[in-house]
Amino acid sequence: MRESLVRAAFQLFLERGFEQTTIDDIVSLAGVGRRSFFRYFPSKEDVVFPDHEGALQGMTAFLREAPADGDPVAQACDASRLVLAMYAADPLFSVQRYRLTREVPGLRAHELSVVWRYERALAEHLRERGADRSDGALRADVVAAAVVAAHNHALRSWLRAGGEGDVDAAMDEALGYVARAFSPAGPSAAPASAVPADGAHPRQDPDEQVVVLVARKGAPLWQVVRDVEGALGQ
Amino acid sequence: MRESLVRAAFQLFLERGFEQTTIDDIVSLAGVGRRSFFRYFPSKEDVVFPDHEGALQGMTAFLREAPADGDPVAQACDASRLVLAMYAADPLFSVQRYRLTREVPGLRAHELSVVWRYERALAEHLRERGADRSDGALRADVVAAAVVAAHNHALRSWLRAGGEGDVDAAMDEALGYVARAFSPAGPSAAPASAVPADGAHPRQDPDEQVVVLVARKGAPLWQVVRDVEGALGQ
Repeated sequence: MRESLVRAAFQLFLERGFEQTTIDDIVSLAGVGRRSFFRYFPSKEDVVFPDHEGALQGMTAFLREAPADGDPVAQACDASRLVLAMYAADPLFSVQRYRLTREVPGLRAHELSVVWRYERALAEHLRERGADRSDGALRADVVAAAVVAAHNHALRSWLRAGGEGDVDAAMDEALGYVARAFSPAGPSAAPASAVPADGAHPRQDPDEQVVVLVARKGAPLWQVVRDVEGALGQ
Repeated sequence: MRESLVRAAFQLFLERGFEQTTIDDIVSLAGVGRRSFFRYFPSKEDVVFPDHEGALQGMTAFLREAPADGDPVAQACDASRLVLAMYAADPLFSVQRYRLTREVPGLRAHELSVVWRYERALAEHLRERGADRSDGALRADVVAAAVVAAHNHALRSWLRAGGEGDVDAAMDEALGYVARAFSPAGPSAAPASAVPADGAHPRQDPDEQVVVLVARKGAPLWQVVRDVEGALGQ
């Protein structure tokens, strides 16, 4: 019944427009009673995004099960892919909905609220897993916003193109950009000037086999070389 | 007249609640006609955020005038401070509004739309100034979201604390975190594995006097040392 309500609603939204369609029109076409509509959807806006509650629950469950010793940023990126999967499961419906959402200000506002809830779920995960960092809460908010922006950049480019093209490759590129900016080898929230004047601080990313070394200008060369040597494993 | 409408509206919102206050109540208390209200505000929600249109225009003008050879990320961070300045100009009003917005779902949704418009203004600037990068559009969306999230993290911590504490210092820390992640010395969208196996790539930030060196693990030590030496100016 839920499915037939969604089908009826979209048929009418596309034929008459969202504003011109009433809930009575929808239940009448679907052949169900008005109370049935509200059993499934709190409002007319919600029928436009029928799968978001499920995706949000899936994301929360995925994050809860994520290994405690994993990279929380990579986990947040992977969690966002669950949203893409929902869109990619039905490209035609997703593209129609995207166009409808662009045209109706009320739907855009509703979509922003939905996106905000995804962002909060990611931020909460990052906050919990980064609770030992003094800048954990700031970092969680910034990274969650970056993941959502990257995800939506790839998703919307694909929707604008009518669902054509390799959305998985675009998503890999977009989320990879965020992962490189914020994963363990990424920037620390401590100001750069807090790096001791006499030290070099090698940080390693074992997967990428790249050494990132931060040194205060003016540090003794022998000390920097010693640290470089250690970091390069030579 | 605009100012007295805002004062009357807030008095009623705090006394009776937002939902229980009608536009007729507001104009009656302010002693003006109903049409005057709509001359200034499209809706009851807009009177809660009376200065955002001005701040958005200020931000757009600031970005338009920003030097073409400056760092667009730093410019976006500075532009976001115009929003903070608006809040800090009247802490009591800002704290009252924050509490009201937390309680009324319709106001939260309206606030998300406002924040979205700031984010788009920043993204457009970053997109224009980064048009020569192949990943310019992705980067613009991600950085704009990160700047807005960092700004809002500092702003909301201050509002939650009742407007007490050094919001400028908190904002410096929050925006500094984003600047370090994405400013010219920040990550490139090219995968880390694209760093040539035989090279070290020193990058310098002349203001902070900190040397960041990225080297492929396994690079010859003499080559890394030569690059470190050059970067440290020794």
